[in-house]
Amino acid sequence: PHVPHSAPGYPEGTMLERSKDFYTLMNQRRSVRFISPEPVPREVINNAILTAGTAPSGAHTEPWTFVVVSDLGTKHQIRRIVEEEEEVNYRQRMGDKWVNDLSKLRTNWIKEYLDVAPYLILVFKQTYGILPNGEKRTHYYNEISVSISCGLLLAALQNVGLVTVTTTPLNCGPQLRLLLKRPATEKLLMLLPVGYPARDATVPDLKRKPLDDIMVHV
Amino acid sequence: PHVPHSAPGYPEGTMLERSKDFYTLMNQRRSVRFISPEPVPREVINNAILTAGTAPSGAHTEPWTFVVVSDLGTKHQIRRIVEEEEEVNYRQRMGDKWVNDLSKLRTNWIKEYLDVAPYLILVFKQTYGILPNGEKRTHYYNEISVSISCGLLLAALQNVGLVTVTTTPLNCGPQLRLLLKRPATEKLLMLLPVGYPARDATVPDLKRKPLDDIMVHV
Ligand SMILES: Cc1cc2nc3c(=O)[nH]c(=O)nc-3n(C[C@H](O)[C@H](O)[C@H](O)COP(=O)(O)O)c2cc1C
Ligand SMILES: Cc1cc2nc3c(=O)[nH]c(=O)nc-3n(C[C@H](O)[C@H](O)[C@H](O)COP(=O)(O)O)c2cc1C
Repeated sequence: PHVPHSAPGYPEGTMLERSKDFYTLMNQRRSVRFISPEPVPREVINNAILTAGTAPSGAHTEPWTFVVVSDLGTKHQIRRIVEEEEEVNYRQRMGDKWVNDLSKLRTNWIKEYLDVAPYLILVFKQTYGILPNGEKRTHYYNEISVSISCGLLLAALQNVGLVTVTTTPLNCGPQLRLLLKRPATEKLLMLLPVGYPARDATVPDLKRKPLDDIMVHV
Repeated sequence: PHVPHSAPGYPEGTMLERSKDFYTLMNQRRSVRFISPEPVPREVINNAILTAGTAPSGAHTEPWTFVVVSDLGTKHQIRRIVEEEEEVNYRQRMGDKWVNDLSKLRTNWIKEYLDVAPYLILVFKQTYGILPNGEKRTHYYNEISVSISCGLLLAALQNVGLVTVTTTPLNCGPQLRLLLKRPATEKLLMLLPVGYPARDATVPDLKRKPLDDIMVHV
């Protein structure tokens, strides 16, 4: 069944103002790798994940699972798995060029934030589902859908003054999946440590491309 | 060089309220396939694309190009390319199961919105870049980064009361890339028709999964 759809409908001046304000807010987002241990209310995290869950998805499969880790022991096990793999990534797998591209970000394989951040959000994509009759149901475009939902998650976190850094821990997926007891239908896509920024947090002094470099009008 | 980072820092009550309000706003987003021809201010679209451009990206490659099409003739050529391919997709390529999964959405290969919507935004991912010395520079995770930026684009559109439907036109990429004169380093990822909802717009009566089905707490 189809139902009528109505959108709010703002006057033009209001639209323009809202579009500017939202851009200003989102433009203040930065990937922060120094996170404060200060506790963050669970309900704020729940609302951010509900927001991520409003994303569109291919054929409405909603192919995402957000594992929110606050348990200290589990966070530490995650850190050990990630640091072990990341050291190998940096030393062997990534190649000089990639490591060079990352040098201005000063990232390396030591990830203190994995112990310190009050929450780690591990985002899994469900590559397929299982129907009641046991048959597999393919999730078309699951990685794109889950990445879009992460965009909404980042917006929701930024909107409440929390910070994170988007990471895709190379080669850690299988171990983290087992640690967190996720089924074989799921694959780790991203790991986001979430909290307030540390008091002395710094970020690389990056610029973003101007509009003319990212938009073409026809 | 690294620079200090400071975030706004809201009191807990404010955070909670902001997190609820943003969820409520985003939860009203729906994929709308009936779009009004009413004109929309260009500056609002520009700000939405600037917002998309604040997304994180692997090694800060910013691997996205947003082609905004308002020219009537070009929109019509896009429609012809997409409908021709989509008819083959539905009749032959997708298979009965996929078509069946889509039947409740009542989507088919007729896409009137491609002529009618005031803007079509075609989102290209830059799979690699070319360095000044002519060498290729790989864009790690370009599809994930561009999909995240589309999540921000959807949030920005929803925030001003505009609608769209996220589509990934199967097999149309090469023809649309040539039509829009994009270089071979770019590949079409998504096509979003953007405008106000048509007065009589309807949407499939879908429900979203509750929090407990998408979140696990450890
Ligand atoms: C990657 C992706 C591809 C999609 N492709 C199409 C498409 O080709 N045609 C279409 O009508 N809808 C498409 N959709 C929209 C979904 O059908 C829609 O998001 C889903 O049914 C949930 O509805 P909602 O967006 O209103 O919440 C796509 C969505 C995503 C995320
Ligand atoms: C798909 C993806 C993977 C990323 N992987 C890492 C990572 O493993 N480690 C890290 O420190 N930052 C990672 N980043 C963050 C980027 O380095 C960061 O977004 C970019 O430098 C731009 O900075 P900004 O987010 O502050 O705008 C990743 C970002 C994306 C989108």
